Amino acid sequence: MTYCVAIAVDAGLVFCSDSRTNAGIDRVSTYSKMFRFGVDGQRQFVILSSGNLGTTQATISRVKRDIKERAMQSLLTVESISEAADYLGGISRTVQEKHDAHGTGFEASFVIGGQIAGKKHRIMMVYPEGNHITSSHDTPYLQIGEHKYGKPILDRVVRPDTRIHEAKKAVLLSMDSTLRSNLSVGMPLDLCVIGIDTQQITEQRRIEPEDEVFQAMSHAWSQALRDAFQGIEI
Amino acid sequence: MTYCVAIAVDAGLVFCSDSRTNAGIDRVSTYSKMFRFGVDGQRQFVILSSGNLGTTQATISRVKRDIKERAMQSLLTVESISEAADYLGGISRTVQEKHDAHGTGFEASFVIGGQIAGKKHRIMMVYPEGNHITSSHDTPYLQIGEHKYGKPILDRVVRPDTRIHEAKKAVLLSMDSTLRSNLSVGMPLDLCVIGIDTQQITEQRRIEPEDEVFQAMSHAWSQALRDAFQGIEI
Repeated sequence: MTYCVAIAVDAGLVFCSDSRTNAGIDRVSTYSKMFRFGVDGQRQFVILSSGNLGTTQATISRVKRDIKERAMQSLLTVESISEAADYLGGISRTVQEKHDAHGTGFEASFVIGGQIAGKKHRIMMVYPEGNHITSSHDTPYLQIGEHKYGKPILDRVVRPDTRIHEAKKAVLLSMDSTLRSNLSVGMPLDLCVIGIDTQQITEQRRIEPEDEVFQAMSHAWSQALRDAFQGIEI
Repeated sequence: MTYCVAIAVDAGLVFCSDSRTNAGIDRVSTYSKMFRFGVDGQRQFVILSSGNLGTTQATISRVKRDIKERAMQSLLTVESISEAADYLGGISRTVQEKHDAHGTGFEASFVIGGQIAGKKHRIMMVYPEGNHITSSHDTPYLQIGEHKYGKPILDRVVRPDTRIHEAKKAVLLSMDSTLRSNLSVGMPLDLCVIGIDTQQITEQRRIEPEDEVFQAMSHAWSQALRDAFQGIEI
């Protein structure tokens, strides 16, 4: 499986993805599920992917080819994040339909987010059916894959006015809870931040299993949860 | 859906269940999913149920009838918790098979736990197929239903030497996280404790939505998590 999460706060966008893929439990690999596209200062997009690896790879290849071949429609021509999500969903459907006759299990979901100069920064979730939804004031985040373990922390701490630094912390702790509780989600992680109105990638990091900052955060969070637990009266 | 959780620590057993059932989102009801059977001082069992309400009700009815009619095999005759789980799984299979010809969706899962005088206290999870597993030293709890939201807290704080009071707190906080993040799990809650070697129900409580102790705990936990979150450095 997979866990990917994106947060859209007033100050910008934060994306995080794991990198474990598996086809059966003895066929486990590491693939990044985060893809960046854009022109600095003009437009930036990040795509997170979940689901059948054949479908997600073919979809991302097509997105890249459309940019390279200057197709009529590509992430360089779309005029809104919504149009980008629609475009991505269309490709995903086309790829899935190629294989549908042979059975099911080719489904894939995506999160696409970013900003086009002069427009609002947004995140969208693209369903396997090709349609999409966006985040909201009350739920300023989107998740794909193994989303349940890491949802409680997001529900408690993320608001539209959450600062970027706190949003980063929230996605990393949400990911940490998921990593601890579900073997199908694994390190390394990819983390990416797009600050508002910059149309630049403000930060991009790969977090390896031996990353000391992540390990220290994970340890401190465990300890803080245990301390909080001790402090609760029933 | 449902969320039920049982913890087996050295000092005894703690059970907790929600009470929301739904067939479609406009057919929502409250049913207890916790059932107690036993003879004080001799043997105590608690069953938690999840899945198709027709299957769980028919299964529990049969368990009751076998006791009332002094059947050859019942919860009053089984010689171990494992035999009790086997017996329960057999009934569940029989009930499901009655309806299998008409389609799927009749599956149910159970947790059964308790103690028979002179034997070890144990908890077992009974799968829809009728087979069962028990908890372990490393994983001293079992969950059925919407188990993912409430798993991280259990993974972090429950050990075999956890005291009963702390185990109660753990199930209530695990339930609290699930209630917050999943609408299909709802109050009131049922909580039950069986202390080791007593063969008595040590504590049984129904926790209503307006329960002030639970509300205070839920609020304090939210605040503690937010404080812990603020304190984490990345």
